[in-house]
Formats: sequence, structure tokens, C-alpha cells
Amino acid sequence: MIKPTTDSLPAPTFTDTTSRVVLAHGGGGQLTDDLVSGRILPRLGNNILNQLLDAGVMADASGALALSIDGYVVQPWKFPGGDIGRVAVTGTINDLAVSGANPLGLALSLILAEGFPMANLEYILDSIAATAAEAGVRVVTGDTKVVGHGQADGIYITTAGVGRIPAGRLLGPQYVMPGQLLIVNGPIGEHGLAVMLEREMPDVQSVLRSDVAPLNGLIRDVLDVAGNNVTFMRDPTRGGLAGLCADLARQCGFRVVLDEAALPIRPEAHHAAEMLGLDVLDIANEGKVVLAVEAAAAGRVLDVLHRHPLGQQAVVIGQIAPETDSLCELRTVIGGRRVVQKPYGEQLPRIC
Amino acid sequence: MIKPTTDSLPAPTFTDTTSRVVLAHGGGGQLTDDLVSGRILPRLGNNILNQLLDAGVMADASGALALSIDGYVVQPWKFPGGDIGRVAVTGTINDLAVSGANPLGLALSLILAEGFPMANLEYILDSIAATAAEAGVRVVTGDTKVVGHGQADGIYITTAGVGRIPAGRLLGPQYVMPGQLLIVNGPIGEHGLAVMLEREMPDVQSVLRSDVAPLNGLIRDVLDVAGNNVTFMRDPTRGGLAGLCADLARQCGFRVVLDEAALPIRPEAHHAAEMLGLDVLDIANEGKVVLAVEAAAAGRVLDVLHRHPLGQQAVVIGQIAPETDSLCELRTVIGGRRVVQKPYGEQLPRIC
Repeated sequence: MIKPTTDSLPAPTFTDTTSRVVLAHGGGGQLTDDLVSGRILPRLGNNILNQLLDAGVMADASGALALSIDGYVVQPWKFPGGDIGRVAVTGTINDLAVSGANPLGLALSLILAEGFPMANLEYILDSIAATAAEAGVRVVTGDTKVVGHGQADGIYITTAGVGRIPAGRLLGPQYVMPGQLLIVNGPIGEHGLAVMLEREMPDVQSVLRSDVAPLNGLIRDVLDVAGNNVTFMRDPTRGGLAGLCADLARQCGFRVVLDEAALPIRPEAHHAAEMLGLDVLDIANEGKVVLAVEAAAAGRVLDVLHRHPLGQQAVVIGQIAPETDSLCELRTVIGGRRVVQKPYGEQLPRIC
Repeated sequence: MIKPTTDSLPAPTFTDTTSRVVLAHGGGGQLTDDLVSGRILPRLGNNILNQLLDAGVMADASGALALSIDGYVVQPWKFPGGDIGRVAVTGTINDLAVSGANPLGLALSLILAEGFPMANLEYILDSIAATAAEAGVRVVTGDTKVVGHGQADGIYITTAGVGRIPAGRLLGPQYVMPGQLLIVNGPIGEHGLAVMLEREMPDVQSVLRSDVAPLNGLIRDVLDVAGNNVTFMRDPTRGGLAGLCADLARQCGFRVVLDEAALPIRPEAHHAAEMLGLDVLDIANEGKVVLAVEAAAAGRVLDVLHRHPLGQQAVVIGQIAPETDSLCELRTVIGGRRVVQKPYGEQLPRIC
């Protein structure tokens, strides 16, 4: 006997972050860090999990295996440029790829609310199939659960993936050194903005579309050419470029300097972010990768990126400076400097 | 702006199984099969996924890798004998173990509802840690998402796991042949009954407790002794022993004969199932494994099981008969025979 939803009051707003979970705990910002470092790692921590990488890397008889998982709760489930199925495949493949792993297979877990239209489920499954085919990766196992109407918001998907890291691949913040350049493969902020516009301002006409796309092919091309001249890769999803660069500065110990004038941001993204009261740097991407590259190899890396459909607008956006203060600094267009901080909480709930 | 839940009517009941998802699509019975074979496999199918095993098995440089995933939505989140955290670790480890794989690592995805008490989350994380330690497996990666109050029922967990299958291990319904015996490691039905009693009849006092326990150690002991004399293993979770044996008969092509008098069912389980109007054979277990074993090796397998804390009540419950009709038959206590069918739908929503 499932109890019907009879709550006729507005949903409560939870703000006490110590005794209850709040939306901001899932935002990929400082409160997420607090939850992970304060509640999860003291209980589940070990030398792999504690690294908090996009994938857990396990030594194995023939090299290293990477295991990655992400839950996807994006709302609405369909938005300009993508849908929850495409995001669920892409996000996990990209987490494996930025770990230097070649994806071997995906696992797919669906949590469906009773009453979810079968036509929507089929649309999402078609999108999963198309995205997996685009990436050349197969779904090898899965699970489906159904909960009562009102016990989930339509559909939640969790995707896990396993991949193999070739022997000799050295990637991680410990290899990031002063003088290396930071490259991104194209314009930022467009996934989060497209989802937020669709949800909050559905009547606004915008050409913005989510950038959601699997990057394993592009990353394989880069590593084939540049090898260990690429020292670090990460996809700026929740927390955006700001969260990624603040984390990288903390982890590598040096200063990360971003050049505002070089950041690839379309005018439409600027406009949308202003309307929504957001900073483009904080906004999630689902088809972008930030690479730290030895300066001498940057030209070759850019050449490879520019030849790939998903890297045509790749640019250098900054560099690693010698200061050992673990800060991320933005050099602004008018010559100013400001510290870039990880977003605090949940400006963007349910963006992926 | 998350819309508040303002639905003041009873939840609708969905019964049209072609245009909408209904609870029974998640029950592990025939409607789940319909969803998987009719909607999912035509879109995502491949030679690994199509086998519909507990884990997807991928050939790899040094043998085979197994990847498994399961979503856990059990309600209530705590019940006699366990909680959602223990189930989430156990279920995935057991899926790897029955595939013949030694677990290498787990990935953990949490979907939390805003307002979920932090103390409950910590209880669940402690349980995850304790269960993982009991099984000797580590959580190597994870993800946390938060959705609005009313957009999830407290906590949903998805666990994925990866494991290695030793070279030369032959396990699967294609190795199941007439004359082999079926063994189960102890009393059945107790997980589902304990959860249902807690949810539906919280005032009823019962000694029933969930059997939830990781079986990788017990299974490793058995395989060390019996090797490929064990031809098939599976854990009777959703769909229960009935679902498992009906599936096995269909997959191996022979008749599976169960001996009702031999089935290990505690009197308390009989009573509880009668109160709830359920058949113990249909009910989910979370600490049981059914093994098909060459008759000559059955004694050795039982000896090993009896020496393990989780196998002390192991018994032979049936055998594979030579008829090639793919039926599962129950020989009743009074000498009758009946066909055991896979449960149709969702007698037991949100049991795991």
C-alpha cells in the first residue's frame, strides 16, 4: 500500500546544512565538498576513493582499470541539444576518457516513476543507443526499478562505466607544473544555460543548445599525438570551469591563471547568464574537456583538436604559474585580477 | 524554481502497461521481462547485454571482466536485519560473485531528497562501510545528487561493481545438464517478508529478519573446492526462487524439478507469507545463492557450504531432469506436481 501524496502545502525549504540534506549538497560546489569530506570519506575512504577523481583507478594484472559512476536527474528530461539519456551516456564516457581510459562497457540503471509515459522512455532509450553508438561503447548490463507515482520525478538514470588505462599513461594533478598551458576544446557554459532556460524561461527563444557529446574519440586522438605531454584532463561539469580550476590549483599546489579575454564564451551565453543571474564560469558543460599541456606540445594538441568536429574552437585559456599558493586567478579583460572560487552551493539544481 | 507538490488527490493508479510505466514493470516478473525484451533490448541489445546475466562479461587482455549494476529503492530504508546501504553493497557483490567474478571495486551513486536527515545518511554510510569491509571490497568512486523535497522518497542508491573472472571458469545455463543437482545455501523468502512486514504491518511482532549478506567469500570457498563442477549460480532476488528456476529452465532447455519437501522455509516465513497473501517461492532473498552442481560433487559442495556461517543450512532442493520442455516443476509434499511460473508483476514493490 503506497501512501498517496496528499501534501497540499508548498514544499518546505531546508537550509540547515548540518542536520538535513539540502539541494546545495548536490551542486558540485563547496557544500558538496563538505558532504564528501565530512560525511562520506571518513566512513568509506581509502587510497583510491580519497583521490576524488572522475573515476576510481584500480591496479590490475594487465595495467589499470578505471571505474566511474554518475547519477543523472536533469530536469526537464529533454532540452535543446540533448536529453537525460544522452547526458547519462556522455557523462560517464567522458569521466573515463579524462582519466586516460578507453571505455570497455557501460552499465545502466533506471529508476522510473509509475505513470512515466512509455513513449518518453523509448525516446530516452533511443538516445542512449545513439549516443553509445556514436562513442563506440556498448551497454553490457542494466537494471530497472519502478517507484510509486510521486516518489520520483519521472526518470533518474545512473550510468557506470569501466575502462582500461594503457600502461605508462601518467595523468593527474601531480604532473601539472608551472609553464604548462590550459586548453579547452570550445565554448563554455552552454549545457547548463540551455537546461536552465528551458526550465525557468521556456518562452524565451534562444539559439543556445547543450554541448553534450562524448569526448572519448577526441581525447584518444589527442593522447595518440601528445602522449604524456598532456598531464591532466578533466571535464568541467557541475561547478563549471571555476570549480575545475579552483580544484586543480588546490590539488597541484601552483597558481592557475585564466585569461578572461581568451575564454570562449558565445554572446548568447553571456546574455543568457545575465538573464539568469549566473556566472558562465560556474555553469556545467557536458561536452568540454580542460587539458593541461606542456607548452612545447600545445601547438600539436591544438592542431589535433581543431581537426576534430568537437574541437574546432579549441583555445588556450590560461597557464600554470610558479606561485605555490594554490589559487585560481582570473586576469580580466580590463587588466584586473580576481580570485576564482569554487561555487558555494546549488545555483543550478538538477542540471545533469 | 522547483514546483511545490500541491497534489491533494490520492495518487493515480496506472494499469495501462503499454503506454505508461507501472509498478509491475519493476517487479522482476513477466512484465519486467516484457519491458526489457520489448523496449530495451531492441534498442540497446548486443551479444553481452542480450544474455541478461547478473553482470555483463567482457573479454579483456587478461581474461574476462564482469560489470554489474543495480538500483536500490527499498522502502522503508531500514528494516529488521538490514538497511538500504547493506542491500546496495550486498546485491552488487552477489551479482559479481554468482558470475564467477572476484570483486575488484565498487562505485556508489546516491540520489538524495532535499530534507533527508543527515543522521539517516550517516547510518546508511556506516552500513555501507561495514558491509564492504565484511566482503573485503572497497568503494573506489562515487557520485551524489540531490533532488527537491517530494522528488524522491528519501534515498535511492545505485551500486555498480567490477570484478575479474579467472581464466577457465565455465558458468552459465548452457553448462546445466540433466542429473545435476540444485543447492541453496539456506532458508528462503526472509528478506522480502521482513521488509513487507515492516512496511505493511509494523505492529506485528515477528522474529523474521532479512538474510541480506555478501556471499563472495562463501562462493569463493565453493569454487575453490568444486571448480567447474558448479555449472551455474544465481541469487534469487526479485522474482524469488520461482523466477530464478523458471528462467533457468527456459535458458538451459531442460526441466527443472524442485522438491517442495526439501525447500528450506522457516515456519515464521510460512506464517508471514500467509498473512501477506504471498507465495514464499516468489519472494526476494538477498543472502541466498542457487547452485547447479554435478551430482558427484554435491557432497563436497554441501560440506564447504555447511562450514561457512552463511551456508550452515544448505540443502539440495531439486535437480535437472532430462525432459527438454523448459518447464520448472514443483513436486509437492503430498505427491502432486505443479508448474512453477515466474511471478507476473509487482507483488512486492520496492523490496530492494
